[in-house]
Amino acid sequence: MYLLIKGGTVVSASGAQPADVLVEGERIAGLFAPEHTPAVEGAQVIDATAKYVIPGAVDVHTHMELPFGGTFASDTFESGTRAAAFGGTTTIIDFAVQRTGERVPDGLAAWHAKADGNCHVDYGFHMIMGGVDDESLKAMDSLVESEGVTSFKLFMAYPGVFYSDDGQILRAMQKARENGSVIMMHAENGIAIDVLIGQALSRGETEPIHHGLTRPAELEAEATRRAISLAEVAGDTPLYIVHLSASQALEAVAAARDTGRNVFAETCPQYLYLTLEDQLGAPGFEGAKWVCSTPLRSKAEPHRRDLWRGLRTNDLAVVSTDHCPFCFKEQKELGLGDFSKIPNGIGGVEHRVDLLYQGVVDGKLSLARWVETIATTPARMFGLYPRKGVLAPGSDADIVVYDPNARTTIGVATHHMNMDHSAYEGYQIAGKVDTVVSRGTVLVSGGEFHGRKGHGRYLRRGLSTYLL
Amino acid sequence: MYLLIKGGTVVSASGAQPADVLVEGERIAGLFAPEHTPAVEGAQVIDATAKYVIPGAVDVHTHMELPFGGTFASDTFESGTRAAAFGGTTTIIDFAVQRTGERVPDGLAAWHAKADGNCHVDYGFHMIMGGVDDESLKAMDSLVESEGVTSFKLFMAYPGVFYSDDGQILRAMQKARENGSVIMMHAENGIAIDVLIGQALSRGETEPIHHGLTRPAELEAEATRRAISLAEVAGDTPLYIVHLSASQALEAVAAARDTGRNVFAETCPQYLYLTLEDQLGAPGFEGAKWVCSTPLRSKAEPHRRDLWRGLRTNDLAVVSTDHCPFCFKEQKELGLGDFSKIPNGIGGVEHRVDLLYQGVVDGKLSLARWVETIATTPARMFGLYPRKGVLAPGSDADIVVYDPNARTTIGVATHHMNMDHSAYEGYQIAGKVDTVVSRGTVLVSGGEFHGRKGHGRYLRRGLSTYLL
Amino acid sequence: MYLLIKGGTVVSASGAQPADVLVEGERIAGLFAPEHTPAVEGAQVIDATAKYVIPGAVDVHTHMELPFGGTFASDTFESGTRAAAFGGTTTIIDFAVQRTGERVPDGLAAWHAKADGNCHVDYGFHMIMGGVDDESLKAMDSLVESEGVTSFKLFMAYPGVFYSDDGQILRAMQKARENGSVIMMHAENGIAIDVLIGQALSRGETEPIHHGLTRPAELEAEATRRAISLAEVAGDTPLYIVHLSASQALEAVAAARDTGRNVFAETCPQYLYLTLEDQLGAPGFEGAKWVCSTPLRSKAEPHRRDLWRGLRTNDLAVVSTDHCPFCFKEQKELGLGDFSKIPNGIGGVEHRVDLLYQGVVDGKLSLARWVETIATTPARMFGLYPRKGVLAPGSDADIVVYDPNARTTIGVATHHMNMDHSAYEGYQIAGKVDTVVSRGTVLVSGGEFHGRKGHGRYLRRGLSTYLL
Amino acid sequence: MYLLIKGGTVVSASGAQPADVLVEGERIAGLFAPEHTPAVEGAQVIDATAKYVIPGAVDVHTHMELPFGGTFASDTFESGTRAAAFGGTTTIIDFAVQRTGERVPDGLAAWHAKADGNCHVDYGFHMIMGGVDDESLKAMDSLVESEGVTSFKLFMAYPGVFYSDDGQILRAMQKARENGSVIMMHAENGIAIDVLIGQALSRGETEPIHHGLTRPAELEAEATRRAISLAEVAGDTPLYIVHLSASQALEAVAAARDTGRNVFAETCPQYLYLTLEDQLGAPGFEGAKWVCSTPLRSKAEPHRRDLWRGLRTNDLAVVSTDHCPFCFKEQKELGLGDFSKIPNGIGGVEHRVDLLYQGVVDGKLSLARWVETIATTPARMFGLYPRKGVLAPGSDADIVVYDPNARTTIGVATHHMNMDHSAYEGYQIAGKVDTVVSRGTVLVSGGEFHGRKGHGRYLRRGLSTYLL
Repeated sequence: MYLLIKGGTVVSASGAQPADVLVEGERIAGLFAPEHTPAVEGAQVIDATAKYVIPGAVDVHTHMELPFGGTFASDTFESGTRAAAFGGTTTIIDFAVQRTGERVPDGLAAWHAKADGNCHVDYGFHMIMGGVDDESLKAMDSLVESEGVTSFKLFMAYPGVFYSDDGQILRAMQKARENGSVIMMHAENGIAIDVLIGQALSRGETEPIHHGLTRPAELEAEATRRAISLAEVAGDTPLYIVHLSASQALEAVAAARDTGRNVFAETCPQYLYLTLEDQLGAPGFEGAKWVCSTPLRSKAEPHRRDLWRGLRTNDLAVVSTDHCPFCFKEQKELGLGDFSKIPNGIGGVEHRVDLLYQGVVDGKLSLARWVETIATTPARMFGLYPRKGVLAPGSDADIVVYDPNARTTIGVATHHMNMDHSAYEGYQIAGKVDTVVSRGTVLVSGGEFHGRKGHGRYLRRGLSTYLL
Repeated sequence: MYLLIKGGTVVSASGAQPADVLVEGERIAGLFAPEHTPAVEGAQVIDATAKYVIPGAVDVHTHMELPFGGTFASDTFESGTRAAAFGGTTTIIDFAVQRTGERVPDGLAAWHAKADGNCHVDYGFHMIMGGVDDESLKAMDSLVESEGVTSFKLFMAYPGVFYSDDGQILRAMQKARENGSVIMMHAENGIAIDVLIGQALSRGETEPIHHGLTRPAELEAEATRRAISLAEVAGDTPLYIVHLSASQALEAVAAARDTGRNVFAETCPQYLYLTLEDQLGAPGFEGAKWVCSTPLRSKAEPHRRDLWRGLRTNDLAVVSTDHCPFCFKEQKELGLGDFSKIPNGIGGVEHRVDLLYQGVVDGKLSLARWVETIATTPARMFGLYPRKGVLAPGSDADIVVYDPNARTTIGVATHHMNMDHSAYEGYQIAGKVDTVVSRGTVLVSGGEFHGRKGHGRYLRRGLSTYLL
Repeated sequence: MYLLIKGGTVVSASGAQPADVLVEGERIAGLFAPEHTPAVEGAQVIDATAKYVIPGAVDVHTHMELPFGGTFASDTFESGTRAAAFGGTTTIIDFAVQRTGERVPDGLAAWHAKADGNCHVDYGFHMIMGGVDDESLKAMDSLVESEGVTSFKLFMAYPGVFYSDDGQILRAMQKARENGSVIMMHAENGIAIDVLIGQALSRGETEPIHHGLTRPAELEAEATRRAISLAEVAGDTPLYIVHLSASQALEAVAAARDTGRNVFAETCPQYLYLTLEDQLGAPGFEGAKWVCSTPLRSKAEPHRRDLWRGLRTNDLAVVSTDHCPFCFKEQKELGLGDFSKIPNGIGGVEHRVDLLYQGVVDGKLSLARWVETIATTPARMFGLYPRKGVLAPGSDADIVVYDPNARTTIGVATHHMNMDHSAYEGYQIAGKVDTVVSRGTVLVSGGEFHGRKGHGRYLRRGLSTYLL
Repeated sequence: MYLLIKGGTVVSASGAQPADVLVEGERIAGLFAPEHTPAVEGAQVIDATAKYVIPGAVDVHTHMELPFGGTFASDTFESGTRAAAFGGTTTIIDFAVQRTGERVPDGLAAWHAKADGNCHVDYGFHMIMGGVDDESLKAMDSLVESEGVTSFKLFMAYPGVFYSDDGQILRAMQKARENGSVIMMHAENGIAIDVLIGQALSRGETEPIHHGLTRPAELEAEATRRAISLAEVAGDTPLYIVHLSASQALEAVAAARDTGRNVFAETCPQYLYLTLEDQLGAPGFEGAKWVCSTPLRSKAEPHRRDLWRGLRTNDLAVVSTDHCPFCFKEQKELGLGDFSKIPNGIGGVEHRVDLLYQGVVDGKLSLARWVETIATTPARMFGLYPRKGVLAPGSDADIVVYDPNARTTIGVATHHMNMDHSAYEGYQIAGKVDTVVSRGTVLVSGGEFHGRKGHGRYLRRGLSTYLL
């Protein structure tokens, strides 16, 4: 049961060098200087000549089958993890949900039920806390101790659904400080945003672009700063800002990081490439495809430039997708005539590795940083390292062979996500996922899928090893 | 000719995991998950059970045999590299010197002559530019292209010896921008400092502590900011601030880094542990032992706390030693009655790995960050990666087995540097260098030295692979 | 009906010079260079030789008879304005209150009823908005247009009593942006603070010092930053932070001001002189005297130093008192055994002019700045200039003759406020209020009170003339 | 000998209100509320109805007859002060010059000789220190004590002419700290700039625009920061940055001011209105008209917006002109074919009051701030207050009646400066200087000049009263 990946250039978070990777079973058995690679009898050999060999990518922000706005995210764990695999992502961390009024263990159980036996790649869960109270605070402890759930997401937006007030946030942060977990934050001032939404609708401003215009960058920055303050009051609770999209929010994160605080942030490919004017402001109802929160930002401001810079400086530590697909027909269309009814989300679990490699080609990111932001840091941040995120002896054999000389065309005709449109339709991207190995099993090669539902296993995560 | 390091925990810049390391000849042949390590016939086996296995440390700032103030740094390349090896440092980058009025190639040749055949570990050279002019600017190109010297140090202090004015600095930075090299900067406003020194001496303030008091932190910060500005005007030339010691200078570096600039800095163990009051202000002439520039900083201000934080946040990317030893007798004593005549320098090439590991024990630095700051980043910064700074197949077999359960006592009785005193006399440090391997050769084991002069080879360095 | 103030040095917000002031009736008729002062037949002459002549001070933050925590602030408009006059304050702006659930016009009417006919000095009203909704937003317009109320105070603390959520704040700010009024903000994150209070009480921490410990500086800074953000989203609504006490909040104000935002702040004497440890932490229940919100801050941090600096740099534009007196007996004692039940407030309307003059003597403030922060800017900020706040022809003849050579001893034995204790008991202060004139009437001279209840008139204020 | 200015609105640094001003002889005798203005027999009456009455403006930065680049500034003290008067400026502070190699008292005497008996308005001198050494440092003391020269200008540019190195700057700052004077700084890194100039010329870039391109904003900011640092090391010496033109330099000043440092700055009308592209980049050699240092800045960056903002926030405290006129013919033309030979300077002493009033009309500055930046603060900053800069009893009767309803057209056909061109040719400006009174004498009225050479007197200045 040997697999040998031969002739490639292994890229780690520190740099690149030629090496061969030997897999036995589900783990990496060894790495070799090419001239020292032994002949392994019976081994399946993958020729990686002129290709990069990187750790399977880790997407720490997906929402398969998420109920939202009266419908469900259109990818199941089955379809979504299959698409992930096609895109070189061999681990996802999805969000189990406690909605306001529900119990935490019930939410976790419900998500296990959705995922169990259906996944093509390994998966873990964060827990969305939609109702911080004495009971749910206790549940946080037990999830950390017994369930391998070591990160909890709170919302400063969506009152009545996910929203926590500042007192609830503070209590959850105090609890996380005690049990070593990480607080993830959807940082938007939803209370103020809801006023702006109401005012816009009352003025008859119903088109998708108003989704973005009623969520100004300053209200993302405000919430980001507030979360950072509350985490400080709680005793420097590790804080991870999700889907950061605005320069001003980035500035707040950078300032906290300069003081040595355990404040981290992710961004997503949509914020690196797409804009309020070009996508959200597309004619008619077309813009609904790009309704997500935080929203796409104005190209009149240097958000995209700043986010790429943040990736270089590590003020943005991670790129995730916030994969939350909805079909245009029947789903996005729920918001015809009222942008506030459009289900929020963009599907992209399949394209992160490619879209970020394009950044390497464009000179915006180094090769090492590419691997670090899509694989190594996500794994370290959320307690999966060294099992995931690195090509090292003993680690899970999650391996991607990446061909820098091929090209990828993105679009609904070729993608594997369950969506009737693509956020990146027609994009021509340098580089291509060539071969994908998950725990020693080749899932993708030659453009074909060789995996099977249920191969993916639940990951009990440990505490973060990325804290300062 | 095999060497197998077995049973240890390999620590990289990303984390730690059990792995065995197989060396053939001078290179690492492979790394193995322990259960997959083959039996290698005839291999020398080093048992690393319960120990860390880390890349040989890289000290990018040493001054062996440096002529200074009418004397010479007391370690030769022979004695200094032997001490380095004892301390787990298997690569040094020393500074060849062009003094004001001399020619660059002559300086480089002179330093080669000192080092050639005398070193116990591998070594490279930066070039000190003491006279930027048309000729020396041309020499920069040829050093990059032909000599493996890809970093150039300038001084904003020491007029008449090393000092460059802002026009010379700008020209050298423009040249570095063209040829891809890195400018290293001694950032102190020496012109203003010399006024303060003259005033202090004229007031009869001659004791060693006045060395520190006449070099205020603000004048380090000023020069740091100025160097950053000039590098910007030159077109974002990569800039590396040496021996950063003051909070205010760190703040300037952090601010530049937040904007995505290629600005980097190192600090040294002396600034992390020692202070103006406790050491430089020791009674009588004792403080002369700790006269170095930049000087030790006041403990009344949070410099040490901020420097440790800077190491965590990567605003300080590297720890070097600025090893520049002078004996107390006859050397430091040149400044009896006039602190400005005390040769500047502290010897510490032997203690960096241990002193930083103490930071890990004290909770100030993670294990991964320890390895990153003393080995991986130095190698990446100065064009030695992946040959040095990482345990990976194909890399040079520079390996340290580190025992976290042993202890080190620092002092003149036990150290191997050619100094009649120690800057850290009596320090009890957690952890101990156990075994040191350089290019496959065991230099140190069981407290004994097995190396031989001339084993160390000159390293032609490439361009930095650490730039944003 | 002439009054001539002769021989003194007139101090304005720009500087000091000798001048005589002629009053006819209620207004200043003219100012003269001493050698040009005409003989005015029948004029009452006040000899101000060797004394300062300054505009009557303007205290823009008082709470006479405020209902709070089941009791009432112990000064009536009568007793409070009499004490104000003794202290050189000839104008107050008090806060009419709309509590949550009440109507704005009713609140204003109630406060008029309390003050009408009872005041010794002129007075205006800000309006506290305890319930922003469609009706109260409309009321804001009518108060600006018809009632001379051009500033509105909101609370980010005290849920259920005064608290506005961020949506309400945003709406009120939008309204203020339209009608030209100023939003005043009690900036503390009361939602988070209430969690900390509950936790402290449940741990048995009931003493007065826990009032301060459960209101950390960071939660004042957070709210300050949030208010600044919301004012930006509302279109740069003029924002005035009340009773700023923490360095971190000051830093937020300064940062906003650097960008040219219409953000202003006041501090109060208690924050300039008193501390958490020395006063709030007094033995037993004694600390209750100093329970106010924002709380006194720790002397371990440089809050007081920074506040004095803020006064110099104009990042703090105004000094008010937040006069809100409660007797120790029966009032403060309501909180015996539970600090959260202690009525919040310190009485100080009588001492502001003296306490700030002490700052002049101590070299912390210039003479000009003293007058500017206690009289000129308050009047400009809140639409009373040039009627108040300046000694100029045509202005109201509100004049204080201040004796820099006399001294004031503060204490319950001599003060005129209706309090059974003093926050500054025993303070020996340089300087003394000598003579106080309100609209041409001498209220105080020779330590005697010559005024009468009802002399003070309601001031219909215009819009701020202090905006950038 | 009475003069009565009647019916106008007096504008001070705090606000505006109707008042009449009575002058006797050279001083203001009194100010009256209009209804209280006495009939003054025989008084000359100026009707100021519907007009503003403001203190005569104070221009603290002029260079009459300055020798520069082989020629002389084209305005004599006679022609220059006459033009100043026409423009509402009744006080100038010019710069006496010690060039490198000359003695300070000789320089001062030379400037007195030029000005004595020739000026139409009052004047003072700053001293340019072109050679800081033991002798000139002593001279600083005697100028402060005996000559009424209480401010000293240093240059970080122009080596060999005016340049001081950082050691000289530090020494002069230490001296100023001792004797209470203010250091004025031309903040540009001239050493680095000269490298850029040499490189540009060697590339054949000789046109006027290259004057600007070789003086990048970052090198103004760098020098500004350096000056601030040196002033800190000297013990918080009061520092006044002259002709600040770049956003980055403003940011440095604002940051220092936030910390309470005695750091101040002026800008000039040319930086508020003119740009590198539109003026300096005019076709052919035309741009030479606008060659001045610091240079006009690029309109691609928000320098002008930021400078206006700085005036509002008081990070820019003063507007001066840096009046240094050269005729195009024969003078500017010295630099045909080599921009570095163009005499540096723009003439504008006549237009400052009008150009800033345009800012009031444009909503960029309040009326009060207009008066403060052109008259009150300059007088306070440089030890002339309350003699100058304020309309108050006892002050010099320097008064401008300003007509907000008239308009001014700027151009060579109408201006009174000795220049064959105008930097603002064709500008149509709202407002117009109507009447100008200097020490009780009407210099300008009805567009006619009534003054006489020699009316202007030398002002022995005191220490600054503007320090924090």
